[in-house]
Amino acid sequence: MRKILVIGIGAGNPEHMTVQAIKALNRADVLLIPTKGAEKAYLADVRREICDRFLENSSCRILDYAVPVRRADGTYEDGVHDWHRAIAGIYERTLLNELGENQTLGLLVWGDPMLYDSTLRIVEHVRTAGNVAFETEVIPGITSVQALCAGHGIALNRIGLPVEITTGRRLSEGWPESSRDALVMLDGVQAFRTVEDPEAEIWWGAYLGTPHEILLSGKLADIAETITETRAKAREAHGWIMDTYLIRRPAGEEEGA
Amino acid sequence: MRKILVIGIGAGNPEHMTVQAIKALNRADVLLIPTKGAEKAYLADVRREICDRFLENSSCRILDYAVPVRRADGTYEDGVHDWHRAIAGIYERTLLNELGENQTLGLLVWGDPMLYDSTLRIVEHVRTAGNVAFETEVIPGITSVQALCAGHGIALNRIGLPVEITTGRRLSEGWPESSRDALVMLDGVQAFRTVEDPEAEIWWGAYLGTPHEILLSGKLADIAETITETRAKAREAHGWIMDTYLIRRPAGEEEGA
Repeated sequence: MRKILVIGIGAGNPEHMTVQAIKALNRADVLLIPTKGAEKAYLADVRREICDRFLENSSCRILDYAVPVRRADGTYEDGVHDWHRAIAGIYERTLLNELGENQTLGLLVWGDPMLYDSTLRIVEHVRTAGNVAFETEVIPGITSVQALCAGHGIALNRIGLPVEITTGRRLSEGWPESSRDALVMLDGVQAFRTVEDPEAEIWWGAYLGTPHEILLSGKLADIAETITETRAKAREAHGWIMDTYLIRRPAGEEEGA
Repeated sequence: MRKILVIGIGAGNPEHMTVQAIKALNRADVLLIPTKGAEKAYLADVRREICDRFLENSSCRILDYAVPVRRADGTYEDGVHDWHRAIAGIYERTLLNELGENQTLGLLVWGDPMLYDSTLRIVEHVRTAGNVAFETEVIPGITSVQALCAGHGIALNRIGLPVEITTGRRLSEGWPESSRDALVMLDGVQAFRTVEDPEAEIWWGAYLGTPHEILLSGKLADIAETITETRAKAREAHGWIMDTYLIRRPAGEEEGA
């Protein structure tokens, strides 16, 4: 049967590649690499560097594809679903037209396919469409959450306490009820500025794992403005930004472990 | 200056090792490996296998140490803090007695040092004690959360929704208010049995990443008993167990991304 290998490649540092991911890369007959725009171009470069360094299977073919443009009309949800289906069509055509019966398609996923990534959902669209049979295997990869914590030398959680992993959009609607620690991804609105606790601390990072990595930390009230300015300048300079942060508010209670 | 390298080695599969972690392993002058009990013996074996496979620096010395026993009297918190201080003493003596001025001590951490692991806190105890100067560098590693999701081929989060990472103890006190998805670690009480939502689904895994890996998933109400029995039998057979799971309750709302 055909196979799709969904391979986590880490947060931007090619040395985040695991031995398992390197082996998976070399099991693929075809690798699909998305290209488009400043951000995508950078990501495509990292994927290419990974292939240059770690791919030894000379019969593997690397195919580029242009990422479909997301529709701006209609609801956000409809736009995302249409966009996923368009990419699913690309995966499906690749499986049918580029792969033989027992061949393997490799998809290189930034970070880990489990965390705020659409690849597994898009692969499910292909399966549901039912036009081609295949199995799926997932290889985990280092996420930007881990690169953030490693860069700052901190633990994500306090002893025995929970952490909420959430989005900027959610945080901007209010602090999570059940956790005093929030790890925020996909923040296009700088939601950290909506947190008003004078005791809150922030550990912020952008371009994590890459040579452009920026790390800032401190009392949120003291450095929110610095982060906003740093973020705006970096985004201007690079044409894109990906950032992640942990905000911790006093808990008043710590458990063991 | 002396250095402590805190190296995430992955969730149990030696092939979770990243290129960065392998390089870090080979930068250490001394590696400290804890040994004790059935669980610790297994973990020590994985660490040893990692050293056998990936350590090429023949001048590196591997030192064993017996993990101090955690006090059972007094409060849980006091027990944990005393236990951390005892391990901190071992790190400190190793830095002072086994390392030269510009040498590096490597600590191999199961999973990633950021997630429900005490190593970074223990290293902070050593720093606070002030008897030896050193810098710290952290190398991320694949966590059991990632091995769980990869094994099941699922994403941790639903589109645009938050996930709470929490402990069994916390979950047994009630479902997190702000998330319909809970990833549970350190569950000694099988807290999944306290979730009463008939629509809840569970993705459970034990010994993730190892040859003993067990994966079970389905409607929680249907398989809670099977998980409890499987867990008890496996624990009996191996003398220890480490398990992790995701529970997802119907959300009624999904956002984009």
